[in-house]
Amino acid sequence: MIGGGQGAFIGGVHRIAARLDNRYELVAGALSSNAEKALASGRDLGLADDRCYASFEVMAARESAREDGIEVVAIVTPNHMHFGPARTFLEAGFHVICDKPVTTTLDEARALAGIVERSGRLFVLTHNYTGYPMIRQMRDMVAAGALGKLRHVQVEYAQDWLTEAAESTGAKGAEWRTDPARSGAGGSIGDIGTHAFNLAAFVTRETPDRLLADLTSFVPGRRLDDSANILLRYASGAKGMLWASQVAIGNENTLTLRVYGDKAGIEWSHATLNQMSYTPYGEPTRIITRNGAGSGPSAARVSRVPAGHPEGYLEGFATIYREAADAIMAVRTGAKLASDVIYPGIREGIAGLAFIEAAVRSNATSSWETLNLQW
Amino acid sequence: MIGGGQGAFIGGVHRIAARLDNRYELVAGALSSNAEKALASGRDLGLADDRCYASFEVMAARESAREDGIEVVAIVTPNHMHFGPARTFLEAGFHVICDKPVTTTLDEARALAGIVERSGRLFVLTHNYTGYPMIRQMRDMVAAGALGKLRHVQVEYAQDWLTEAAESTGAKGAEWRTDPARSGAGGSIGDIGTHAFNLAAFVTRETPDRLLADLTSFVPGRRLDDSANILLRYASGAKGMLWASQVAIGNENTLTLRVYGDKAGIEWSHATLNQMSYTPYGEPTRIITRNGAGSGPSAARVSRVPAGHPEGYLEGFATIYREAADAIMAVRTGAKLASDVIYPGIREGIAGLAFIEAAVRSNATSSWETLNLQW
Amino acid sequence: MIGGGQGAFIGGVHRIAARLDNRYELVAGALSSNAEKALASGRDLGLADDRCYASFEVMAARESAREDGIEVVAIVTPNHMHFGPARTFLEAGFHVICDKPVTTTLDEARALAGIVERSGRLFVLTHNYTGYPMIRQMRDMVAAGALGKLRHVQVEYAQDWLTEAAESTGAKGAEWRTDPARSGAGGSIGDIGTHAFNLAAFVTRETPDRLLADLTSFVPGRRLDDSANILLRYASGAKGMLWASQVAIGNENTLTLRVYGDKAGIEWSHATLNQMSYTPYGEPTRIITRNGAGSGPSAARVSRVPAGHPEGYLEGFATIYREAADAIMAVRTGAKLASDVIYPGIREGIAGLAFIEAAVRSNATSSWETLNLQW
Amino acid sequence: MIGGGQGAFIGGVHRIAARLDNRYELVAGALSSNAEKALASGRDLGLADDRCYASFEVMAARESAREDGIEVVAIVTPNHMHFGPARTFLEAGFHVICDKPVTTTLDEARALAGIVERSGRLFVLTHNYTGYPMIRQMRDMVAAGALGKLRHVQVEYAQDWLTEAAESTGAKGAEWRTDPARSGAGGSIGDIGTHAFNLAAFVTRETPDRLLADLTSFVPGRRLDDSANILLRYASGAKGMLWASQVAIGNENTLTLRVYGDKAGIEWSHATLNQMSYTPYGEPTRIITRNGAGSGPSAARVSRVPAGHPEGYLEGFATIYREAADAIMAVRTGAKLASDVIYPGIREGIAGLAFIEAAVRSNATSSWETLNLQW
Repeated sequence: MIGGGQGAFIGGVHRIAARLDNRYELVAGALSSNAEKALASGRDLGLADDRCYASFEVMAARESAREDGIEVVAIVTPNHMHFGPARTFLEAGFHVICDKPVTTTLDEARALAGIVERSGRLFVLTHNYTGYPMIRQMRDMVAAGALGKLRHVQVEYAQDWLTEAAESTGAKGAEWRTDPARSGAGGSIGDIGTHAFNLAAFVTRETPDRLLADLTSFVPGRRLDDSANILLRYASGAKGMLWASQVAIGNENTLTLRVYGDKAGIEWSHATLNQMSYTPYGEPTRIITRNGAGSGPSAARVSRVPAGHPEGYLEGFATIYREAADAIMAVRTGAKLASDVIYPGIREGIAGLAFIEAAVRSNATSSWETLNLQW
Repeated sequence: MIGGGQGAFIGGVHRIAARLDNRYELVAGALSSNAEKALASGRDLGLADDRCYASFEVMAARESAREDGIEVVAIVTPNHMHFGPARTFLEAGFHVICDKPVTTTLDEARALAGIVERSGRLFVLTHNYTGYPMIRQMRDMVAAGALGKLRHVQVEYAQDWLTEAAESTGAKGAEWRTDPARSGAGGSIGDIGTHAFNLAAFVTRETPDRLLADLTSFVPGRRLDDSANILLRYASGAKGMLWASQVAIGNENTLTLRVYGDKAGIEWSHATLNQMSYTPYGEPTRIITRNGAGSGPSAARVSRVPAGHPEGYLEGFATIYREAADAIMAVRTGAKLASDVIYPGIREGIAGLAFIEAAVRSNATSSWETLNLQW
Repeated sequence: MIGGGQGAFIGGVHRIAARLDNRYELVAGALSSNAEKALASGRDLGLADDRCYASFEVMAARESAREDGIEVVAIVTPNHMHFGPARTFLEAGFHVICDKPVTTTLDEARALAGIVERSGRLFVLTHNYTGYPMIRQMRDMVAAGALGKLRHVQVEYAQDWLTEAAESTGAKGAEWRTDPARSGAGGSIGDIGTHAFNLAAFVTRETPDRLLADLTSFVPGRRLDDSANILLRYASGAKGMLWASQVAIGNENTLTLRVYGDKAGIEWSHATLNQMSYTPYGEPTRIITRNGAGSGPSAARVSRVPAGHPEGYLEGFATIYREAADAIMAVRTGAKLASDVIYPGIREGIAGLAFIEAAVRSNATSSWETLNLQW
Repeated sequence: MIGGGQGAFIGGVHRIAARLDNRYELVAGALSSNAEKALASGRDLGLADDRCYASFEVMAARESAREDGIEVVAIVTPNHMHFGPARTFLEAGFHVICDKPVTTTLDEARALAGIVERSGRLFVLTHNYTGYPMIRQMRDMVAAGALGKLRHVQVEYAQDWLTEAAESTGAKGAEWRTDPARSGAGGSIGDIGTHAFNLAAFVTRETPDRLLADLTSFVPGRRLDDSANILLRYASGAKGMLWASQVAIGNENTLTLRVYGDKAGIEWSHATLNQMSYTPYGEPTRIITRNGAGSGPSAARVSRVPAGHPEGYLEGFATIYREAADAIMAVRTGAKLASDVIYPGIREGIAGLAFIEAAVRSNATSSWETLNLQW
């Protein structure tokens, strides 16, 4: 693991996610660039002292040299520290699991795509919400044509933890997320907007080709957007709206997705993640529950407990890790990967950066901008 | 009553609304321009035969001449039939209660404003959702500064009854609503978008000065928009999103309003109209219920039953009628109107048309357009 | 109208309910037994002075003598003042609409049943919740066998307005409701428990034959129960639970009904009265909405506005009045009453008193008691 | 681990729960009494062949003899196979984590209590719902007096998976749960009623001293109750209702708890487990969320992710394992166990059996029965 030392939130999440299905063992880490903290953090986690590194380059080199070296590395650092470690480990022959957004610029993301391709290694991006069973269910329903031709895609991700200038009061997570040097050009659009964007694309299997964005930094002195109001247009003729805000008081972590076609509509909300609603035109709304009646095999495959026993955030995150483990095993054994194993990768990373850059551009020009999805 | 003959939905709603608080008596009508239907409809409602008119001009003339003539007229015709009757009755000295949008063009709306002013009569526009107690409550909370400086205004009005080409199958309500000659330039933005726009303005007491609209007619052959994705900007720096759709399957009549400031957020949804949520920053969300704890006097004034006994659409509509009755009494008696009596009027009508026209313009230019609110 | 003078809550509700569908005209009343208040209250409502009575006996006599006398009377007094006026008006040839519970004792209720029968007049009991469209829908679904053989009936009616000793602080409504002389033997079971009991019986078309009740007066000094925990047994083998409380803090007027059979379950809650859920075994839950897909003709018949436009308490109450008007017209004209017109009457009144008396008896004996439903 | 071989649901849950916080390592098991299945199941889980036992007695003996033997055993067998293994492992010096209900009879539970006491080992009963953060929060609020003197305890646990005779169609979980020889005297009351009973007692810190139960087997041929309607009385004067059903169609795993005192009411439901509502009398309802504003330290201590990121069933279960790990460490090191570490144990097991036996007795006598809680 790169990053995720003492006090870091997302590192702990990755570790639980990796552990949940018993498919990974944590044996080495560059948990901090501060040697002392790296060692202390590693010991907390039961790492051997000689595998607690203060530099990812050293770690890559040493682990390469060991017979019992690591097979895959998880990168959980701030955005600007994704590209370097990812390149290093991929080139050293390791698989990489990386937090999102994949890099701080689209150019870097494209460069990384080339590195991934040349390496022959797996690159997994933890767009964790795609691991939720009901999200898989919705994706299948869209693909099966249950909605018909898509018309509306309404997606929102709202929080309130940046309502005040948390970055000025020593909150580390707030500091780097509002710093262009560490986050890239996107504030809220990078941190949560990319999640919303990815989720909609995952479910609909359509990516908007144009957008119009109105970005705002409501908090005085804040250097990146803390909210984004965005209109989307799809090549298919569908239209969308995406709202991301980190200053919407009362929203702890509200993520909602609603998709309407000419045959049916589906709706899902994070607060009730174990269910979705489905309304065929002219019929009563159905509540489809995880592992309940009406829920299909792809949702069941990523569920761990029966219907009615709520699953949550960690389980969804763990599914990304489990899918990655299956994919790694397939690489290791040369076996064909089962077609229902799905994990976000470099393609989704590029789409995320294309989204951020188009939004920033559109905000500057006040006009519709094209997403540059090629690579 | 002008319009509202047999088979018309909104006419019946107006009549119940007028009756609910026992402040009106229906005594005359031009319920249809077809003489036979006008008479039959009038008899159904207990009107005397000689007060069942087939022409609003004749009605205005004859009722003016009667000692026991009407005092106020309700206009419930399609949009293109608002201006004529409104002018005629205002000029004949009657008060007017009129359905929304007020006219089919902004120019007409402005012309009507002059007529209203010269007439000295009341002009009441039935933006009925402003009659809901919790909407009054939200408006008061914003005015009292509970939210601080506003940041986000998220408003939606979604339906699904135009999912298919209902206008081609003889549905009268669908026919005129999708016909530019009878509806004006706006389809869904006129029919429901103006409600959403008005509701947000009523609660926030701010009107956006610019907007960017993406209008769509999803149903082949439809001549007006059936959905509208709109970004809003306010002079105060607040930002907004407005979504209106008549093709969002599973939404019968979903109207939601969420407003976030730098001190608190409030949320309201039509499906649970007797409550709202209020979250001061850093505190738990409060559920404020109609006539319950935390609900203030302006909500109580427009409530009819105790907390926990649901009120609905008709009661909200009736409040517009009751407020109008109070205002009419004040005109009649020369008494000062109580300051808490509120009803939408010609100013709100102009704002609605300014909204429609800016949206149509923005959709054509793909750029931010200014709302022309002057009059 | 008998009772319902200035300051009375339920009288105003009855008047709006009567007015909503334009089927009644209020022309006379004994609104108070205090002559001065009776006159003032009547004038408020636009009654002629000579039809503002201070005695229901005088009113019955005088109105009988008038050519333009009333046709039906509404009794909205406290429970102990139901029997006398009902008998007097029935015997004078008037139809009667009466608040619930019908009387203060089962013996009185049975006596009244005889009077009703001999009079040939209508007796309508305002168990208003049976007027809700989705309640009609549920009743039809049970009758159509959608649920199969019934197993569980779970019904609740919870409030919190008697949490403290409101009866000692001058709250008139609280005073008589906690006074055995005016309320009868039941406190919460009479006031709200009978509503819950009636609602369950209306929907299921089954009346329990035995019950076991645990009644409590939580507030020191209170003379009647303020809550009731009750188990129900049905002749069919179904089992039930009924909870009524007026001291359950946070419940303004929570009424819920859930019925489960061997084929399906249905659920309804007052807070979302315009919808119900329906789950056939092994299928996803359906949300059936008033006038929406899946909602049948009997719900539509008692709806006034389209799907998605919420109806509320007053509309449900008004339906009782409208059904009564239809029934009165049938009596007047000798026409056969349409089979889908339904109103609660003396039979439901007797069942309510049988329920109260069995509950009081069971609470005293700590054993299962039989409901004495014969008459 | 004893039980939990291939195909068993709850064994897998225990293993994830143990793994989630990285406090346990699974090294041995008697996963089945069938030697072949025991070996195959163990290999699936990565156990060494020589630690895959087909007999818990052999396992206890061999593991005692090993230097690297286990420290704690988890018993996840059907109810009738709890006592034997528990006694054996406790007497062999191991800590025991055991599924509920603790035994099949109250006598056995009391006997086990003696064994636990003599052994000096820990006995942890997996009443997993007590691990939920908001349940901890509610418990603290009751203890802090936020509710005042308790009045109503309303608790429900409803499922529908036994709607039909699943026990006759080869569903193993249904078979033993409806077999008195393997389940004990309670069907639904043992399987889910004890959870509801325990949850209410955990939150309120009060145990009812009397109950009146109406048990039913709705499915023809079923030998144990599949539903239970129960009234509760507390020594404090509080009253309660408990409903358990495994035939309530539409309820996948509905667990709800509502507690009302003379100062406030609180409500919680499994479907929205990350929040609870709190209504102080005369104030608006508050929604308190896990790790959000208004949520206290004891909820935070058992949370793993920030507010708004849903936690679920596995996390609550894992908390029981984590608390047990803390307690085991305290025993191992002789340190004092932190006062906020809470886990259900033999006392809760006895209460559960006392509840079952009183319910069965009450059902037979149709009268109030006393819970025999002494030991």
